[in-house]
Amino acid sequence: MLYTSEALQQLIEEFAALPGIGRKTAQRLALHILKQPRDEIVQMARALVNVKDRIRYCSSCWNITEIDPCPICSSPKRDRGIVCVVEEPNDVMAVEKTNEFKGLYHVLGGSLSPLDGIGPDDLKVRELIQRMNGEVSEVILALNPNVEGEATTLYLTKLLKPLGVKVSRIARGIPVGGDLEFADEATLSRALEGRVEL
Amino acid sequence: MLYTSEALQQLIEEFAALPGIGRKTAQRLALHILKQPRDEIVQMARALVNVKDRIRYCSSCWNITEIDPCPICSSPKRDRGIVCVVEEPNDVMAVEKTNEFKGLYHVLGGSLSPLDGIGPDDLKVRELIQRMNGEVSEVILALNPNVEGEATTLYLTKLLKPLGVKVSRIARGIPVGGDLEFADEATLSRALEGRVEL
Repeated sequence: MLYTSEALQQLIEEFAALPGIGRKTAQRLALHILKQPRDEIVQMARALVNVKDRIRYCSSCWNITEIDPCPICSSPKRDRGIVCVVEEPNDVMAVEKTNEFKGLYHVLGGSLSPLDGIGPDDLKVRELIQRMNGEVSEVILALNPNVEGEATTLYLTKLLKPLGVKVSRIARGIPVGGDLEFADEATLSRALEGRVEL
Repeated sequence: MLYTSEALQQLIEEFAALPGIGRKTAQRLALHILKQPRDEIVQMARALVNVKDRIRYCSSCWNITEIDPCPICSSPKRDRGIVCVVEEPNDVMAVEKTNEFKGLYHVLGGSLSPLDGIGPDDLKVRELIQRMNGEVSEVILALNPNVEGEATTLYLTKLLKPLGVKVSRIARGIPVGGDLEFADEATLSRALEGRVEL
């Protein structure tokens, strides 16, 4: 008799179904929950459902938001002339963390991947093109530096350039704090290509 | 503007408050939740609250249970003459997984730790002594092999021996699949002490 409680067993299954959480961690988390005050558990349960009920997609940039348009798209402080294209909402968070970028975003919802059957119509590509209405002067492509991201970058460049907007991509190179010795060849050759004059 | 949704931010905080889950993992989990169907999220939220509402402690062995006495204590298949003493409910699960032990359990709720102010009255020690009513012939002490566990093992041995029950402890030694070369001195010397004649 491994579990003397069905409720506990069910919670362990729920935790174990989350990505990157194994059975042992799931068990540890469930036993931790058991020791918490009821109020806090109810609060956590509510937070779970709230995320589902309150969040939708911004009709302009397709980032997640509770109000449409999203706080970034409706902010008067943001530069409406520059749009950063990313794959997923967590990429927006990653860029926002830098405090470097003050323009708007466009979340594609993934990257082109013919092998998985993901073509331009499965991404917010048409919506991106529709945003090129003269107000936007530069598009920064910030897709993941893998095969799918590269293909998407090339595809979008071909679509955007004829519209007369400046198209750039984020630099690929040695990460800050990284070590030349441990960099792979592809990264190092991109770092050389992208060298900056001093 | 790091998070464009307060609901998402709150769920990230909730996940990050769990033991062993950092901010990055919390963010990844919250975005995973966002992509799940609403039904599944509601089911998970319910599992959280159920654990709090349905689980209590067995009045005999102090393991977690939904019915009192717990399924192990009330099972006719278990040997009532042998009691395995452990620190926490997850230790019961660990022993049950072996399918080796067919007796009953007693969950202390921790181990003696004078530095943290945990004495015998904070553990289910008195309740363990009260169970020594003649029916129990052997007590196996299965506490964690650390300083607190050792102290608790010695303390319980002194209390139980005069009651005329056989008291044993689980073996300390090289883990199965382990390597002599990498075993620490304390483990290796316990393994030598506890050698078994062939």
